Order: sequence, then C-alpha cells, then structure tokens
Amino acid sequence: MTTLDASPASTHVAETPATAPGDAAPEIDVAALGELLLGRWADARRASRAMAAKPEMQRDPSLGMDAHRERVLGQLKLLVDEGAVHRAFPKSVGGQEDNGGNIAGFEELVLADPSLQIKSGVQWGLFAAAIQHLGTEQHHQQWLPDAMSLELPGAFAMTETGHGSDVSAVGTTATYDSATDEWVIHTPFRAAWKDYLGNAALHGKAAVVFAQLITRGVNHGVHAFFVPIRDDQGAFVPGVGGEDDGLKGGLNGIDNGRLHFTNVRVPRTNLLNRYGNVDEHGVYTSPIASPGRRFFTMLGTLVQGRVSLDGAAVVASKLALTIALRYGSERRQFGGGGDDEVVLLDYQRHQRRLLPRLAQTYAMSFAHEVFLDKFDAVFSGAADTDADREDLETLAAALKPLSTWAALDILQEAREACGGQGFLAENRLAQLRADLDIYVTFEGDNNVLLQLVAKRLLSDYSKKFASADAGALAHFVAGQVEEAAVNRSGLRRLAQSVVDFGSTARSIGYVRDTASQRQLLTDRVETMVEEIAGKLRPASKLSKSDAAALFNRHQNALIETAHAHAELLQWEAFTDAVEGIEHEGTRQVLTWLRDLFGFTMIEKNLAWYVIHGRLSDHRALAITDYIDDRLLPRLRPHALALTEAFGLAPEHLRAEIATGVEHERQEEARAYYADLRDRGLAPIDEKDLIAAKKARR
Amino acid sequence: MTTLDASPASTHVAETPATAPGDAAPEIDVAALGELLLGRWADARRASRAMAAKPEMQRDPSLGMDAHRERVLGQLKLLVDEGAVHRAFPKSVGGQEDNGGNIAGFEELVLADPSLQIKSGVQWGLFAAAIQHLGTEQHHQQWLPDAMSLELPGAFAMTETGHGSDVSAVGTTATYDSATDEWVIHTPFRAAWKDYLGNAALHGKAAVVFAQLITRGVNHGVHAFFVPIRDDQGAFVPGVGGEDDGLKGGLNGIDNGRLHFTNVRVPRTNLLNRYGNVDEHGVYTSPIASPGRRFFTMLGTLVQGRVSLDGAAVVASKLALTIALRYGSERRQFGGGGDDEVVLLDYQRHQRRLLPRLAQTYAMSFAHEVFLDKFDAVFSGAADTDADREDLETLAAALKPLSTWAALDILQEAREACGGQGFLAENRLAQLRADLDIYVTFEGDNNVLLQLVAKRLLSDYSKKFASADAGALAHFVAGQVEEAAVNRSGLRRLAQSVVDFGSTARSIGYVRDTASQRQLLTDRVETMVEEIAGKLRPASKLSKSDAAALFNRHQNALIETAHAHAELLQWEAFTDAVEGIEHEGTRQVLTWLRDLFGFTMIEKNLAWYVIHGRLSDHRALAITDYIDDRLLPRLRPHALALTEAFGLAPEHLRAEIATGVEHERQEEARAYYADLRDRGLAPIDEKDLIAAKKARR
Repeated sequence: MTTLDASPASTHVAETPATAPGDAAPEIDVAALGELLLGRWADARRASRAMAAKPEMQRDPSLGMDAHRERVLGQLKLLVDEGAVHRAFPKSVGGQEDNGGNIAGFEELVLADPSLQIKSGVQWGLFAAAIQHLGTEQHHQQWLPDAMSLELPGAFAMTETGHGSDVSAVGTTATYDSATDEWVIHTPFRAAWKDYLGNAALHGKAAVVFAQLITRGVNHGVHAFFVPIRDDQGAFVPGVGGEDDGLKGGLNGIDNGRLHFTNVRVPRTNLLNRYGNVDEHGVYTSPIASPGRRFFTMLGTLVQGRVSLDGAAVVASKLALTIALRYGSERRQFGGGGDDEVVLLDYQRHQRRLLPRLAQTYAMSFAHEVFLDKFDAVFSGAADTDADREDLETLAAALKPLSTWAALDILQEAREACGGQGFLAENRLAQLRADLDIYVTFEGDNNVLLQLVAKRLLSDYSKKFASADAGALAHFVAGQVEEAAVNRSGLRRLAQSVVDFGSTARSIGYVRDTASQRQLLTDRVETMVEEIAGKLRPASKLSKSDAAALFNRHQNALIETAHAHAELLQWEAFTDAVEGIEHEGTRQVLTWLRDLFGFTMIEKNLAWYVIHGRLSDHRALAITDYIDDRLLPRLRPHALALTEAFGLAPEHLRAEIATGVEHERQEEARAYYADLRDRGLAPIDEKDLIAAKKARR
Repeated sequence: MTTLDASPASTHVAETPATAPGDAAPEIDVAALGELLLGRWADARRASRAMAAKPEMQRDPSLGMDAHRERVLGQLKLLVDEGAVHRAFPKSVGGQEDNGGNIAGFEELVLADPSLQIKSGVQWGLFAAAIQHLGTEQHHQQWLPDAMSLELPGAFAMTETGHGSDVSAVGTTATYDSATDEWVIHTPFRAAWKDYLGNAALHGKAAVVFAQLITRGVNHGVHAFFVPIRDDQGAFVPGVGGEDDGLKGGLNGIDNGRLHFTNVRVPRTNLLNRYGNVDEHGVYTSPIASPGRRFFTMLGTLVQGRVSLDGAAVVASKLALTIALRYGSERRQFGGGGDDEVVLLDYQRHQRRLLPRLAQTYAMSFAHEVFLDKFDAVFSGAADTDADREDLETLAAALKPLSTWAALDILQEAREACGGQGFLAENRLAQLRADLDIYVTFEGDNNVLLQLVAKRLLSDYSKKFASADAGALAHFVAGQVEEAAVNRSGLRRLAQSVVDFGSTARSIGYVRDTASQRQLLTDRVETMVEEIAGKLRPASKLSKSDAAALFNRHQNALIETAHAHAELLQWEAFTDAVEGIEHEGTRQVLTWLRDLFGFTMIEKNLAWYVIHGRLSDHRALAITDYIDDRLLPRLRPHALALTEAFGLAPEHLRAEIATGVEHERQEEARAYYADLRDRGLAPIDEKDLIAAKKARR
C-alpha cells in the first residue's frame, strides 16, 4: 500500500502517481465491463434495448399531451405484440415466471420514453401484478390474460388525494352486503378520491381499488378489490366518476386521473383474497392473524415498483453521463496557456462535477443488481422466508430514494455541464429530468422510505444489544410504525469488526485501502444509530404523544442515518463487484472509481469524522487533496471508456451533442484559422500591435 | 447574551427557550415587513404585479410551443400598451431613465410567465439596451423608438454555438470595406453561428451582432453591429440564414434560434460606436486604449441581465415557498400519538426542508435590493466610477449564481414537499422549475461567474498584502483573465477586524451573536483566499502553460471560495436589513431567521471550521442542535406570516393547493369520521377487537 501523505510544502499528496511517466497506464476491457454491468439478466436488457432503439417506441418531443398519451398507449400494444410483457406472469396464464428478467427488461424502457416505462409499469407492474399477487387462481384465469394482452387496461387505485404515504389510512370503503353478496365500494369525502392514477383519466376499463374492508361492523383494514370502471365505449359505469389530472411536470404520455365511487357494487368474489377472504355470511378469514402484518405483507408483494424505479434511475443516469462526458471531451472553451482552447473535461471543476457522479452511477448500478437478485430470489421462491422479504423491503426503501434523487442530480448536472445545448430538447437531458422528477415521491416518498429504513436500523440495534433499555426501545420503535414493518431480523448485518479508530485513524495511508473505507463508512452508520437510540431511550417512559414528540425531534438525524446506511450498501455492492473483476486494468480503474465514490462520501461528511475522532485534521484535509490531485486526474483519461461500457447506442442516446458533432465543429474552426495563418490572411490582433509598439519604444 | 451550552445528558441546547410558557410569543408586522421586502422600487413592483395578475398576461399551460410563442409576443405588445417598457430608456426618446425601477418591474413578470420575463428581457434589456448603451445618439434616434414600441423586434446575437462563456473568442467577423464604406458581416464556420437567441427563430427583424471588428488588417476585438435580418414579410434578408432551436426544457414561449451571415453588408454607421469607431478611411479609434479593458467595459453595460435574473430567482423562490408552506400547514399525514394526523410542517424533517430555504430566500431578497441599488447608482450616474462599475460586476457575478441555483433547489424541494400535488401543472412548481433551469447557465454560466469572483478576491488580496510575491501573484491573476476584469480596487472590503479565533471559538455562547457569525463567515473567506494565494504563488515563476495547470489544480477550491464570499454578501445584506427594523416582534423573528441562515451555512461547512480550529468539536455539534431544537421550533409558528409578507395574491400564486382547498378536504374528512362516531356507525377496528379479546383472556 502506498502512503497518503502530505508534502511539507503544501497539503498536496506526495505519493507517486500510479500512472507515472514510463508506466503503462491501465486500460479497461470495455466489452467485459459492459457485460458485468448488464448483469444476470443481460439478455432481457438487450432485448429491451433493441425495442427501445426502434423509432416507433420512442418519445416524439413535438407531441402535445393528448397525442403523447395515444402514442404511449400504442407503444404498449407493440410491447404486447413483441411478447415483452409476459415474463413475470404465472405459467398457468401463459407467463414465464421470470421476475428478475421482467424488471430488468422494463427498466431499460426508460431509454425509449419514461412515460412508456411508467405506463407499462402501471398496467403490468401494478394493476396486473396486484391481480397476480393479491388475487387467487380464479382471479388469474378471469382477468390476467386480458390484462396481459391490454384488452383490459387498468388503474392501480391505491393513492388518494388525502393519503399517499399513509396507505393504511385511505378513506375509501368496501362494505360487504350479505343481502346481495356484494361489496359496496364508496368514496365518503373528497380527500378519499383516488388520485394520480395512470390509466384512470382515459384508458382504464377497470381498477384494483384499495379500500377499508368492512364486514359485520368490523374494519379489517385495507384490501384490494377488482372494480370495472368504464364500459366498452369508454364511459364511466354507473357510480364511478373521475377527473383528468391534466398536464404534469413530466410523464405526460400517461393519462393520470382521479376516480371516485358512489356505492358501486361488485361481486363478493372481486375481493383479491389471497391474504384475506370473506365468505357469503360476511365472515372474514385471513392466513395472517395480525392486521398490521397482513397489511405489510400485501404491500410487500408490490415492491417491484420500487425495484424498477431504482433500475430506471440507474439507466437514466448512465444516459445522462454518456452524453455529458462525450460533450465535455470535445467541447473547448477559453485558452489554457497554450495555443488551443481547453477541453472542458480537462478543467478540474468539470471533473469534480461529472466524475464523482460517474462513480455514483457505477455504485448505483452494482447495488441495483444486488437488489434485483434479491427480488428475484424472493419472488421466484428460491429464498422467500419472512426475513428475506423483510430484507428486500428494507433494501428497496434504502436504494430507491438514493438512486432516484441521484438521477435528478445527475441529469441536472449533466444539463448544466452542457450549457445551452443541455437545455435543448434535441439533447434530451431536460426532458428526462422532468420525467424522472416524480420518481422521488411516488412508489413511496423518499423521505418516508428512508424513515422506514432508520426504524429498521434502530430495531436491529435494539436486538443486537438486548437489554432492558434496548427492549423498551424496540417496543417503542415498533409502536411508531405498523408492527410488521420493523422489528424483524435479517437486515444485512453491519460489520462485526468495528474497533476503536482513535489511534489508527492517524496512521499513514490509513484511508486508502478497502478495509479502512469499509470501517469508516460502517462505523459511522453504527455510531449514528447508537447515538439516536440513546436519545430515544427515554421514550418508553413517556406518554404516547410525548414519545412521538421525542421521536420527531430526531427525525432529521434518523433520515440522515438511513441515508448513510444506504450509501454503505451501494459502496459494498461496488466493492464486491470490483473484487470479482479479473482483468487487471479494469480492476485498477474501477478501484479508483470506487475510491472516488468512497472518498466523496467521506468528504461530504467530513465534519462527522473529525468531530468523532475518526480522522485527524490532517487526514481530513488529505481526503480532498487525494480526490483532486490523484483520483480525478487518474480517472479523467478513462471517462469515455467508462461510459462506453454502459453500452448505449446512438439510438438510445438520441442526443445531437453525443454524436461527435462538437468535435467536427471544433476541427472545422481550427482548420479555418490555420488556413488563414498559412495564407497570411489572418488579421493582426490589436493587442499584439500594442505590444509591438511598446517593444519598439 | 444567553449561553449556547450543551446539557450534561445530551448535546441538546439547555438554554431557556425565548418563547418559554408565559412569555408572549413575538408577532410579525406583516404589512411593514412586506413593504421592506418590496424595497425602494415598491411602486414599480406593485405596478408589475398588477399586470401579472391579469389572465391575459399569464401562461396558459395548455398551449404547445407555437401557440405559446405567439401568446408571449402578444403579451409584449400589451406591455408596450401599458407603458411598462419605457422606464430605462433615455428621455431623448421618451424614456424615464429609471434604471432600478425598470429592472424591479421586469423581474416581477416571472409571476406571470418566465417566458414573458425573458422575452421582454431579450427585446428591451438586451437588444434595445445594447443600442442604448453601445450606440450613440444617432442610433438612439434611429432605432430605439421602434425597438421600444416593438415595431422592431430584435435579437441579441452574442453567443455562438462554439463560444458562450468566452465571448472574446467569437468567430463572427465584421470587416470594413472602405470601397463601399460598409461592414461585411460574416460567419466563417458552423461553430460561429449565433445560437440560442431569443427572437431569432421567428419574430426578430434585426439583430445586434457581436463580431470581431477588422479594419486595415487589424482585429480590434469584439464590437456590436446593428444588422437587419428579416424583411417585412418575415423572410430572411439576403445573406442571412438561420434555424429554429426548437423545443427546449422550458421557456418555450420564446422563439430561440440560430443565425448565420454570409458576407452581409451594412453601412459603416451601423457599428454601435460608443466605445470604438471607424472612420471612412477605416481608421479605428476608441476612448479606451486597452483592448481588454474596452471589451469588459462594453460587456459591463449589459450587466442588467444578471441583475434581473437574480431578482426573478428571488421572486420565484418566494412563490414556491408560499405554495409549499401553505400546503405544509394544512396537509396531514400519519398519526402522531394523538387522535389527529400530524400537519406536515410539524414534522422536524419538513421544517428542515423548508425553513432554511425560507431564510435563504429572505437573504437573497435583501441582497438583491443591495444589488439593484448599486446597479441604479451606476447606471443613473449617481455613483459610476470605474470602481463602482467593477464592484457592480463582481456583485452580479457573485449573487446571480447563488440565487439562480437556489431557486432551482427551492422549487424542487417545494415540489417534493407537496408530493404528487407538486407535480401537477395546476400547482405550477414543476413548470416554473423547468423554466428557470436555464437561468443557471445563461447570462454567464454560474461556474464561470464564480471563477471571476474568485479572481477578484485573489486580486484584492494581493493588493492588500502588497509584497513582491503578492505583486507577482496579482500579475499572474491578471494574466489569467482579460486584464480589465480583475485587478481593480473597490470590491467590498472584507471585515478589517478578523482576529485569531483560537481561544474565543471555545468560549460559551460564542456563536450566537451577530458579530461572531460575521467573524466566522468572513474569516473563512479570507482564510480560503489566503490559502489559495499561497498555493498559486509559485505560478509567477512558471511557464504560461504550467501556471495555467497550477491554477487549474485549484479551480474547484477557487469556486468554493467565491461561493463562500457570495454567501457572506447575502448574510450581510440580511443582517443590515434586520438591524434597520424597528418593530420589535418582526426584528426578533427575522433575527432568528437570519441566525438560521447563518447557522445553516456554518453547519454546511462545519468540517472547515473544526479542522481550522474555529469551532471546537463540542461547539460544532451544538450548531446542529441549535438549529433543530431552537431555531426551527421558534420559526415554525411564523412560517405562514413570513410568506404572507411576500405579498403574493392568489392571482400570482395560481396554485390549487395554495387556496386552502387542502384544509377544506381535511375538515370534511374529519367531520365525516366524527359524524360516524357520533351516530355509532363507525366500524370497529380489527386491531381493537384483537386487543379486547386479549384483555378478556
């Protein structure tokens, strides 16, 4: 291990560069890295990318909302024709039961148009998936074939105007009427209107409606019901009404809308009854006794939405960085002391803006692969214990917020790094950002999801240190959210080997190696959990409202802790992937990239590391120098290769500035000036004239 | 001064709350605060807001690009009819020579539609302003009346596809032909096409074209020329061509386009010749001998674009926070230990998301008023020395980046804080963000502007410590940019009284008062400048390219330094404003808000303060606690009043969720449940049933 030491004259890192003159600079095996990034479901991704490369599947930016909606509906039909939508469904109805491949394929559709990705997700990932996962065999046979073929477009009617994050409190009711053996679906007030539902404004013929199941005077909590909403002419059926959500900040290819129900009657058997059934006497039974646990089990079957948003955010980030790094490698601006203008990516600031985000995208990509693998294991039944399902949900709640926020940040920085070009529709970045905006608050608001993660961390902590106090804490935490959402085992264990860093933190070269980065990152999460747990300990002795107030006073710190945990998961996925790479050059460059990811996180939280004695002042300053003086210059020559490994073809990029046109323009301009000079036609610069006059004096 | 001390049991601040039970909580005089915020040109702002309140001046979100462009053109005509566009122009052509009032009025137009604000800015703030400021009396008489009345819509043809930030390197040439006494305007290659020009795609009849002025074989640098581009039928005149930039990420009410010129001839007198003239013999003369200084003087006359973007960013931020804080004060989600669901703004995280941004908006607003005042002083001639102009330019380069970035951040956080509602066009946040996106890279890319500020700081530093080394540094810095852009006196002085904090930083209560906040913030800027200056010192002994490389190795730190300086300017403007408030309650609340602004900045850079020994570990932790435990709870009750002071009427907000509708929905839902309970019709919760059964056992 080389040392990370400051030179006497400055805080510059004095270590010999790995690519010192004479050394052969490492090279990346782009093709192999590309395969690694495509992951386990490479074939599904390739097939989906082939579809996304077809013009008829792509967004036409000239279309207004109405035409865009129709175009996307047509594209869904093309997906059906291509046989692209069957992968996830049961073999009993013609599906393939390939859960991982299904999601992998869908998330690549973001390359064609995020509206297409999300409208597909509504139809097959939410509406049909709810029938599949919450319904039973008869429901599958009755509705899945038409849902799969798009004969039956449907809405997923969960969110209400008044309740989004807190689904358990929706206002819509489904009351059993034993006289007619029917459910009465009803919207009791305006806040209980279903809202923001894709397919609701225009195309949906039915909806899976989430409502409070009430029978024999008892509310058994939220269950899902299949409810027809439109007749074959597209008119609402009696009792159903709605509104168009109208224009949105993005995703305008989807017809989001509102629905309300006035004593709409559906047969008893329209209850999707896998986790709760009512017989003709109105007697409720469920395989899960605890109402809270039952609720979270039902919601858990719908986790794939979060999986695919995480994956789509990764794909969009790859797209954005491929465009911005290509442009940044060709565009020149301002002189740099030589004859030529300087290429943007040779500016330190430009590297600072784009390369850490490139590292982040790699981390997100590898973490998503872990996530998808876990998802597939649970849904295929390969590993679907309760603990597995709980881990999957925690992983979803941790990763989806980070990747969707990161995608917006990356798209925006890419946009700004391309200046005015980045703002033109022909270069796509601004529109993609507008479309992905909603990803951070739908399928679980990011802040709410991170809070769930934090509660899980607290719960695990309390088990790890089983004591009277900690037990009380666990009890309290469990009471803060629905019991089934937390207080389970199985969260990936934090490193067991955290030791006191007090002395080693000051040793030379300490922060360079993988084990030390892991310790720094892991220890921070553990310590933050421990600190908050300590502060919340008195809660068990407080009244319910005082305990809630105490909890609320640490809400921000809780969410920051969850964020740190999720970053650690990304770092570990990145590290695992790098350690599996055999090609030496690729492994070297990806190690630098992983270091950049790790160091950037440490730099962001530098105050914490210094205040908590994990890094000396001197070491802390060296972190920034190491990024600026070592990692960025080392990675700069590999920036293009690292985006080439994303494997996006021109038909996926569809950005004028990613075609090499800027390079052509630069060459043309330089040739023009060279020709003028050669022919003696270049005007003299007034400044040179002045300088010459001065010299004559 | 009360103490800011941590209690023994935790890091909570133990200080008695200022609003302890029994104390009367302070109240804000909303009307007076509103007047303060409207500032010196309150009348112009009110008049402009009255126009923005008219439906015909507002954006119609249903319109596609073409219809939107026509609508905005029509709105410009309405502005002319209202007499709203004459304020800035010379009295000789019917203007009022009211520079501050003119900008104040224009920036409020962002409330109606940012496209309207920017298209107005193109026509009167750039095209006509260039004729005014770069031309002379004959040009004013010849073209200003028609430009003012919109008889002559024009483009401001400065930026080229190949050169945006580095205007001095544009490729377009204007070569004097003495045979015909004409200029030959020519585009020698594709990169020299003028690009992103408002009014160029459709409406512009003429353009002010920036080109390299070449006469008698000498290039005298970039000058501006008046060039007709379209005939009365709207067709390009011979030699002129162009393209439509097409759809953009926002601002689609503006017809941005590209222009190119093939040996287009215009009379010699079409040179806007205030700062450089050519006689009929082709002899060039200028009142400014130095070509660099001349160039920056010419550009300096166009600073008003940056002023108005800064102001518009403030207005948009006020709009966004008014909407989000209103919704956050009414929306409820999740139980909080009591019977009712909790109002979003009572969650700590929600306060953390919105209240520091509210503080930032106040800081930006007061800083903009200082900026506008300086602008008016320079342009009115009240204080227009070279030093004043240089200060104005530095202020523009410092404030415009911070406020435009902040506006995007605030609009986004407001969008997310409103969840799905925030994404609907009916609530405006997403569209506003899309429109303001380009503000961060046009009229000076934010990163480039901050680098100018940093160079100014270095230059001032080198003068302050006049020594051989520093002199060399100044020389070097001047060489890094065009000489006239830096190396001038007059930048607002950093506090003179910075002392060593080593010991006092650890004293009790240290960070609370205004003087200490000022010292912490000021000292950081000075120290950062000093550190970078030390690192750049060897540059004077290096070759030009090695010196540039050294400079580049500190580019990121330079820009961070400029950022810190700009934040300090905002903090000082906020503090000056607060100190001028006589109403006790208002002053108290605004002091808390200013503290939140200051503390948030310190918290963001906590690592720096700790590593540099300015804050002890203990003090550093107390910063966060003080924000969470004191400032946020104190400010929470005033959040709505603080947005009411922005004075935005429903016609300005035009957001469904800022109308009180959420409150109505919440009340309706609660009334429904209360009625069910009263009538004994509420179903029993299954959970309660289970609990009751357990109790019976």
